[in-house]
Amino acid sequence: MSSIDRLRTLIGEVMDLRHAADLIEWDERVYMPPGGVTVHGEMSAALRRLAHEKFTSGEVGDALDAARRGVAGEDADSTAGRMVRVVERDYARATRVPADFVAEHAGAISAAQHTWADARASSDFARFAPHLQKVIDLKRRYVAFFPPADHPYDVLLDDYEPGMKTADVRRLFDSLRQRQVAIIKSVAAKPAPQADFLTTAYAESDIRRFAEDVVTAFGFDWTRGRQDKSVHPFATGIGAHDVRITTRWVEGQPLALLFGTMHEAGHAMYEQGVGDEHQRTILEGGASLGVHESQSRLWENMVGRSRQFWDHFFPRLQAACPAQLGSVTADAFHAAINRVQPTLIRVEADEATYNLHIMLRVELELALIEGSLRVSDLPEAWNTKMREYLGLTPPTDATGVLQDIHWSAGLFGYFATYTLGNVIAAQLWERFGAVHSERDSEIGRGDFSPLLSWLRTELHRHGRKFEPKELVERITGSAVDSEPYLRYLENKYGAA
Amino acid sequence: MSSIDRLRTLIGEVMDLRHAADLIEWDERVYMPPGGVTVHGEMSAALRRLAHEKFTSGEVGDALDAARRGVAGEDADSTAGRMVRVVERDYARATRVPADFVAEHAGAISAAQHTWADARASSDFARFAPHLQKVIDLKRRYVAFFPPADHPYDVLLDDYEPGMKTADVRRLFDSLRQRQVAIIKSVAAKPAPQADFLTTAYAESDIRRFAEDVVTAFGFDWTRGRQDKSVHPFATGIGAHDVRITTRWVEGQPLALLFGTMHEAGHAMYEQGVGDEHQRTILEGGASLGVHESQSRLWENMVGRSRQFWDHFFPRLQAACPAQLGSVTADAFHAAINRVQPTLIRVEADEATYNLHIMLRVELELALIEGSLRVSDLPEAWNTKMREYLGLTPPTDATGVLQDIHWSAGLFGYFATYTLGNVIAAQLWERFGAVHSERDSEIGRGDFSPLLSWLRTELHRHGRKFEPKELVERITGSAVDSEPYLRYLENKYGAA
Repeated sequence: MSSIDRLRTLIGEVMDLRHAADLIEWDERVYMPPGGVTVHGEMSAALRRLAHEKFTSGEVGDALDAARRGVAGEDADSTAGRMVRVVERDYARATRVPADFVAEHAGAISAAQHTWADARASSDFARFAPHLQKVIDLKRRYVAFFPPADHPYDVLLDDYEPGMKTADVRRLFDSLRQRQVAIIKSVAAKPAPQADFLTTAYAESDIRRFAEDVVTAFGFDWTRGRQDKSVHPFATGIGAHDVRITTRWVEGQPLALLFGTMHEAGHAMYEQGVGDEHQRTILEGGASLGVHESQSRLWENMVGRSRQFWDHFFPRLQAACPAQLGSVTADAFHAAINRVQPTLIRVEADEATYNLHIMLRVELELALIEGSLRVSDLPEAWNTKMREYLGLTPPTDATGVLQDIHWSAGLFGYFATYTLGNVIAAQLWERFGAVHSERDSEIGRGDFSPLLSWLRTELHRHGRKFEPKELVERITGSAVDSEPYLRYLENKYGAA
Repeated sequence: MSSIDRLRTLIGEVMDLRHAADLIEWDERVYMPPGGVTVHGEMSAALRRLAHEKFTSGEVGDALDAARRGVAGEDADSTAGRMVRVVERDYARATRVPADFVAEHAGAISAAQHTWADARASSDFARFAPHLQKVIDLKRRYVAFFPPADHPYDVLLDDYEPGMKTADVRRLFDSLRQRQVAIIKSVAAKPAPQADFLTTAYAESDIRRFAEDVVTAFGFDWTRGRQDKSVHPFATGIGAHDVRITTRWVEGQPLALLFGTMHEAGHAMYEQGVGDEHQRTILEGGASLGVHESQSRLWENMVGRSRQFWDHFFPRLQAACPAQLGSVTADAFHAAINRVQPTLIRVEADEATYNLHIMLRVELELALIEGSLRVSDLPEAWNTKMREYLGLTPPTDATGVLQDIHWSAGLFGYFATYTLGNVIAAQLWERFGAVHSERDSEIGRGDFSPLLSWLRTELHRHGRKFEPKELVERITGSAVDSEPYLRYLENKYGAA
């Protein structure tokens, strides 16, 4: 057996266990009866522990050393060469952090999440504060396990966006900040579009059927996937050939099911598009959270909220929901689903304001990690930035600093990936338009296969073979850049 | 850590992997999209292999030796003592069979099942014959890994019915043979009950709702279980707190969904009733396939096809299906669901004829294992026995010797457990009636909690702590005995 095949075999066994844990965790959120919580916890802990033990074993270390020598002469972009590089990266990250620390971290996170849920329910930040402090201390200790970086936050970012630096993120937000605020102000100066028909009573089954038709047209492959319901929508790939999405029905927000389904299908089509050569290897799945989010946002926003998309689909949605939309025009509908309205809550934010929510969080978590912001000063810092970026003051911490689960879950470095997703989505969208002039007319006819084929070829099939910055450069010829996104927004909202 | 706790910890890790494999195999049959077949095969193979490796490791062997010394002074019926005994039994069985043989067996089975499916479709026994011969040869080699038994078939039986011997099975069938045939003849001499209302058009949703109400009344715990659809109905317990059943809708057999749901709920309530002390230990789950089948048959037949049951439920089923049953009496319905009609196909057989199908198979597989029947003579031997026991001649091998998957799947020794289930069910039913005189009137009021409580206390909570013969003896004071079953049938069909 060649050294590469040996490594592939060992990693294959790790992937089997990760797949099993992924499927069991899907089941836990979708079909598990309440009594199953203990046995599910035992199963997924056992599988994650075994997968970690196998991955960090000396056997993998030795196989990696041999494989590194085995690919020494090969093209740097060969799949084998890249595979070895990604195993090396993941192995180094997994073996640097001692098991004791991992256990301490898991315990602290578990306690922090429970307290956060209670603190949010009673809008009592003081109760959550010591747990947040503990999480921040743990994050600093985590960073110290790694070689010194330009910025300690680089280490945290790298868990979600391989190769992405704090300086990249700062540059990105610097370029977005003023123009995003200007867009919002310009929109606010105009009369708001009518949108009451979006929140009247719809039948869940009508919207679900329509949403399924839409993602079928996008190219979601139902022979390699399925959709179910869960409390929070998500997508999970058990490899590329069993990719599952979930949705939910929220009273008062009937269209959330539709856009949520497009969003999750965007994630899922990325997973479905990863090449067979990468299955059961370290290169399966998406390149990063940010690149993943670029796919969900592209289908949900660039496609699903575009005027052309509704040329094709609005008559169909009207036919499905004649009582609600029979007397609404496509223009009015399109204006309504794109209305801009600053909100306190990130997950309810529209396209124009979303990045400002992220920017605020990233700036605050950078300051917390640097130590320039004390936990006790966090609520006031949050509220100040909310006023500055969105002109709103949270009446309570529950609708302010306590709204997101991420910090209690130890997910520092994660928020930036949402904005990266928006930005990269616009770069891909613009690039595809440049190389494929029929883009808009095809979408106006409900023909998405040229777009999906292009994404498959340029992006999906590579899996984790290239890092996010490299990928964007290869596909668009440019670095990660906010200009296309700002152009897209300014074009959409008619502002400058 | 005590030697017992050490063993418990090691077995707990094995159980986590088995639970995970069970859940993944449930998913494969219930929700997996077709594309997932490869990744599901990889996951479940990896988990079964790891569970086997862990269970047969020297670590478990050493822990078992220490635990055996640790419980030496204890009461032979202590949970710890029994746990050690069952680990010992399973460990000996798992370590006797070399990995090479297991792999060869798995390969042969896989090929045999594919060929069997094709052979059945074209009713071509000759095509299947060499595969069946190979499976029989493997079974004989399997037997040779074990110490000499009174009969080679003992070793095969013991995989499904610990402690049960070929001689026990022979005795059982000898006592059943003539009286079962006599019952059928006596019933055939009477006019058949009218039953056309059982096969008119029903709405699946009406029957499903009614079936769910019935098993809810039985005591199936939905907070620790669920029901879904699958091609073949089954029950699976991921421990006692997540126990899942499936059902199916067969056109032309609307009531099959109802009785199938009762049947699977019987299996599931057994799993749900296993004591918490046995969870994640070798003692979780049911004592054997036969004891498991006693629970499904008891709820499906002794309860669900009794006249008292329909005192309570027939008005409810009429209300659910007024068009189909509005003008039918409870007596006519009860007679119809209990009509006796010899059939070629085992899975369509009624209570009176079912055991004859099993007897035929067990006699033939005994002869195949002994070598007194050649594979080439099997179809003729099958048809001869069909005429003798049921008065029918299969027009094709597809409806004769090729109808069941079991032999192609290597399941020699399995069929007997169906009859054991019927027999043990009747023993339990009679015993409960003897100690609880209100049995029939309670069922006539739809009150099943005394029955379920009694089963929980006497049987379910013990899990695998006692072997089948011991269990029956402890509960009924008698050995496994066909008399109660024959009394039950003769009483039901008014024959003697």
